[in-house]
Amino acid sequence: MASQGKKLINDPNAVVTEFIEGLVETYPGLQYLDGFPEVKVVLRADYASAMLDKVAVISGGGSGHEPAHAGFVGEGMLSAAICGEVFTSPQVDAILSGIRAVTGPMGCLLVVTNYTGDRLNFGLAAEQARSEGYKVETVIVGDDCALPPLRGTAGRRGLAGTILVNKIAGAAAATGLSLDEVAAEAKRASEMVGTMGVALSVCTLPGQVTSDRLGPGKMELGLGIHGEPGAAVADLQPVEVVVSHVLQEILSPDTNYVPITPGNRVVLLINGLGATPAMELMIAAGKAVPQLQLEHGLAVDRVYTGSFMTSLDMAGFSISIMKADEAILQYLDAATKAPHWPVGVNGNRPPAKIPVPLPLSHSAKSYESLSRPQQLSEQGCLLEVAIEAAVIAIIDLRDNLNEWDGTVGDGDCGSTMCRGATAILEDMKKHYPLNDAAETVGEIGSSIRRVMGGTSGIIYTIFCKAACAHLKANTQSVVTSKQWAEALEVSIAAVSKYGGASAGFRTLLDALIPASAVLQERLNAGDDPCTAFLLSSEAAVAGAESTRHMQAQAGRSAYISSDILATVPDPGAMAAASWYRAAAMAIKNKYQSN
Amino acid sequence: MASQGKKLINDPNAVVTEFIEGLVETYPGLQYLDGFPEVKVVLRADYASAMLDKVAVISGGGSGHEPAHAGFVGEGMLSAAICGEVFTSPQVDAILSGIRAVTGPMGCLLVVTNYTGDRLNFGLAAEQARSEGYKVETVIVGDDCALPPLRGTAGRRGLAGTILVNKIAGAAAATGLSLDEVAAEAKRASEMVGTMGVALSVCTLPGQVTSDRLGPGKMELGLGIHGEPGAAVADLQPVEVVVSHVLQEILSPDTNYVPITPGNRVVLLINGLGATPAMELMIAAGKAVPQLQLEHGLAVDRVYTGSFMTSLDMAGFSISIMKADEAILQYLDAATKAPHWPVGVNGNRPPAKIPVPLPLSHSAKSYESLSRPQQLSEQGCLLEVAIEAAVIAIIDLRDNLNEWDGTVGDGDCGSTMCRGATAILEDMKKHYPLNDAAETVGEIGSSIRRVMGGTSGIIYTIFCKAACAHLKANTQSVVTSKQWAEALEVSIAAVSKYGGASAGFRTLLDALIPASAVLQERLNAGDDPCTAFLLSSEAAVAGAESTRHMQAQAGRSAYISSDILATVPDPGAMAAASWYRAAAMAIKNKYQSN
Repeated sequence: MASQGKKLINDPNAVVTEFIEGLVETYPGLQYLDGFPEVKVVLRADYASAMLDKVAVISGGGSGHEPAHAGFVGEGMLSAAICGEVFTSPQVDAILSGIRAVTGPMGCLLVVTNYTGDRLNFGLAAEQARSEGYKVETVIVGDDCALPPLRGTAGRRGLAGTILVNKIAGAAAATGLSLDEVAAEAKRASEMVGTMGVALSVCTLPGQVTSDRLGPGKMELGLGIHGEPGAAVADLQPVEVVVSHVLQEILSPDTNYVPITPGNRVVLLINGLGATPAMELMIAAGKAVPQLQLEHGLAVDRVYTGSFMTSLDMAGFSISIMKADEAILQYLDAATKAPHWPVGVNGNRPPAKIPVPLPLSHSAKSYESLSRPQQLSEQGCLLEVAIEAAVIAIIDLRDNLNEWDGTVGDGDCGSTMCRGATAILEDMKKHYPLNDAAETVGEIGSSIRRVMGGTSGIIYTIFCKAACAHLKANTQSVVTSKQWAEALEVSIAAVSKYGGASAGFRTLLDALIPASAVLQERLNAGDDPCTAFLLSSEAAVAGAESTRHMQAQAGRSAYISSDILATVPDPGAMAAASWYRAAAMAIKNKYQSN
Repeated sequence: MASQGKKLINDPNAVVTEFIEGLVETYPGLQYLDGFPEVKVVLRADYASAMLDKVAVISGGGSGHEPAHAGFVGEGMLSAAICGEVFTSPQVDAILSGIRAVTGPMGCLLVVTNYTGDRLNFGLAAEQARSEGYKVETVIVGDDCALPPLRGTAGRRGLAGTILVNKIAGAAAATGLSLDEVAAEAKRASEMVGTMGVALSVCTLPGQVTSDRLGPGKMELGLGIHGEPGAAVADLQPVEVVVSHVLQEILSPDTNYVPITPGNRVVLLINGLGATPAMELMIAAGKAVPQLQLEHGLAVDRVYTGSFMTSLDMAGFSISIMKADEAILQYLDAATKAPHWPVGVNGNRPPAKIPVPLPLSHSAKSYESLSRPQQLSEQGCLLEVAIEAAVIAIIDLRDNLNEWDGTVGDGDCGSTMCRGATAILEDMKKHYPLNDAAETVGEIGSSIRRVMGGTSGIIYTIFCKAACAHLKANTQSVVTSKQWAEALEVSIAAVSKYGGASAGFRTLLDALIPASAVLQERLNAGDDPCTAFLLSSEAAVAGAESTRHMQAQAGRSAYISSDILATVPDPGAMAAASWYRAAAMAIKNKYQSN
């Protein structure tokens, strides 16, 4: 269905001048000639110094192909870009203005895409400039490989290969070559490159409706960049099939468009047509390189992937292949200030992938410590007692937790917590290094992570791992009660930061935060650790009970009305209070029994 | 209407790993961990040297936001990017692998976008890494300004402002700052930036259908980057109105999301969402800058325009504004090898526009020569006679030309040519500097260009301007017959090059090419110029007549059957032969009368 094309523009007739204004706001190295709307010429802000002893390189054509060509203006590439209206060749006077602005005694090269309008307008401007005394040469680029060799004057269209030609011309000019030499390098480059495009959608001209030419599930092969129909319509295929077809067309010995044969070196340019995301372009690049290597016997020296010469908002890409040699690579690699020339594509190619590093804890020392000790230390005994009590409390509370959670959530809190508790009990017997409190707390986290899904599993794992890291960094063989209290505080902070909840959010923190506060307060007041822990656990229970009156701010409960919420406490908070209380009681009983 | 989304991919489940493979093919400075499909980590190929004495900076999250974050890996920005599946937070083990791979004794900073999954997974990985002995800090970025301040844990989403935070963190790390200092810089930056987005279309997940949520003529304001609905749907507006609204929301004193007040300096980031062409992004940038300056009283220090953090193939953009100071600008300006960080945005800002240069021919000398001389030289007389005869021949042939053209074209060849001829006659009397043959030929081109539209007008202008340039460069006051012959050859070459036709294409060249050949041949054989010119003009007429038997290769006639074409000669060729013949006859008569 044809529909009004949606674009983020103002006046459809002013898109090119407004584009240039934004371009120049973005890049302080660019300026434009004050001749809107007729003269739309972008030039290097430092053109004046360059024109004294360097050949100027100018390209251009109809707009709608951004960033081409204005985004490629800059030292080492274009001296100026002449912009026509959308898909319309620029006027001769505009081209002439550009030539006059940037051409010095060394002369200028016009790189022209092979369209009748561009050839005639740039050609006339060149002749006019020559008659004014400027040295001007032109090179016409026709890199399209989609159509069989043509009768007649139309010739092969100029496509994204023009970008590579412009880079080579600009780099050659920057080395100080003469006009004839720069033109010769550009001409040679233009004869080395072939391009073919594939489109998934038709582009929309500003202010116009979108054509429905291309149906669902179809693609166009051998498209132009002006919305003209492609050479053929085909069913959409996986991109590796599409890439394979396009590479074969470009490199076809039948058309013999590019002088590339097995054993040659090439550079590859994957060019997005305007509305194709980087992900898809990179996927195409990733398929094209091995195909060129394995199926065509070519060495791929450089890969340029991005949106360089587009067709408004068309979805699709074109592939260009240029035969490479040392001279061409040097020109392509040469530094440029053109803002849209891709960076980071040069340099030695290391292996694409490296091994995933092993965790440090797989070192010999860690393995040794990860087994249940033959004999438990006093602290090891206490830890075992506390852990056992805590997990049994959770197992005992399973049905209550499920019931409360059934009112405010999905009713599996008890089952989930119980799964974690059971795993802790089993793993502790097998391999918890109970005499090492820090490692043991870390292993509790690992047990939880292994069996508990969902947010509660990851929250408890963070809780344990944060405590483990703190204890490891701050304790010796025996952990003091003050250090335990600090570890609790650090763990709560980690859960709050990564979980995004804080006090009053109706979560497990509403049990743990008051517990932590009371624990520190009682220890600071000089209470014995056992008593402090017990008082702290009472605060945990009170805190958990108080969640009945809190509005949920996180998780599924956030969508439940306060009337319903008031009928039950938060199951997460109750679970936390429960295991904490059980641990405290177990420690007390252990001390009393000693 | 919902429809199957079209994408250039292979397996919808392998888009992220295939993206990474293509990315690494494109950029030799990047590598990835060999842990596909679970571990999708892109890292600096030179990470090993950097980790010795620099803090590592790691970011990441769900994929579908390319080039973020993998395209921002490189010296001076990210050490590694952790890629999840599309719109899915990466797994803890993948994040851990990334941390282990690039973190040295200085530690690492994780820059995390504020989504629950990312917070929890990166948070757990951070705690796990700490428990393994790594120094790890995390900074959570939530720069979304679209929604009113939130209750609860969700918080503000992390959007494109994250790119700026990552650049600042990476640059800070590159200077050798400690982990705490790098984290502090990143945190400060994250508090300085606000972002809001606008979408014209909904994105399509690989292998899924495209939602029809957003109707024609509608846009969504305050969108996320995961396909979730925006804060509001509105009628599509001109982009300057959209930009104005977005800037007001970001800078709103009601929400007070960013600490920016009039008089402040800011940087601006215009971020395409995946399917928005550079043209539209630049137009938005061009509108945003003056609005920030004039309506909000802000100095805009940098503008970053491009597609940095996308949402698959969504059409639209987001705007981010960051409060800037010298420190932030220094970090943003610092060199980086991250391939997708924009280049060319720094530096002194010259005036955006400069005057259109005047043509050299407007110099005093040229003006002087551009008037009809009081007294004609011998050559001036001959030139006047020849020109007059030539244009009268065209005027006389007008109806024939129209008739022939009516058979094979649009029937206006005679009228068009006659318009040019008349203008030449008038202009010659007024201001042709007839004693200067080169300038006079150039002025004939100018007369033609002034009044003749279409391809024939520009072709003849090229013809004259090429001759003018050649004569100017190669002749003194009197032009020899040999020089005239050379000028004709050069003009024919220019018309052939820019017009794309050659001999046998059924164009004016089929008259002029044989004429040029005979002229040179006879002059070389020692004939007197008058005779040579006459013989040459007979060749022109014969050549024009021979076009009856040629298949058209250019212009409208290319679509006409050969049966019809054979009934008439090419009107362009006949016109050329006619003026050429008339000029030759006039010269002969003039000589004979002398």
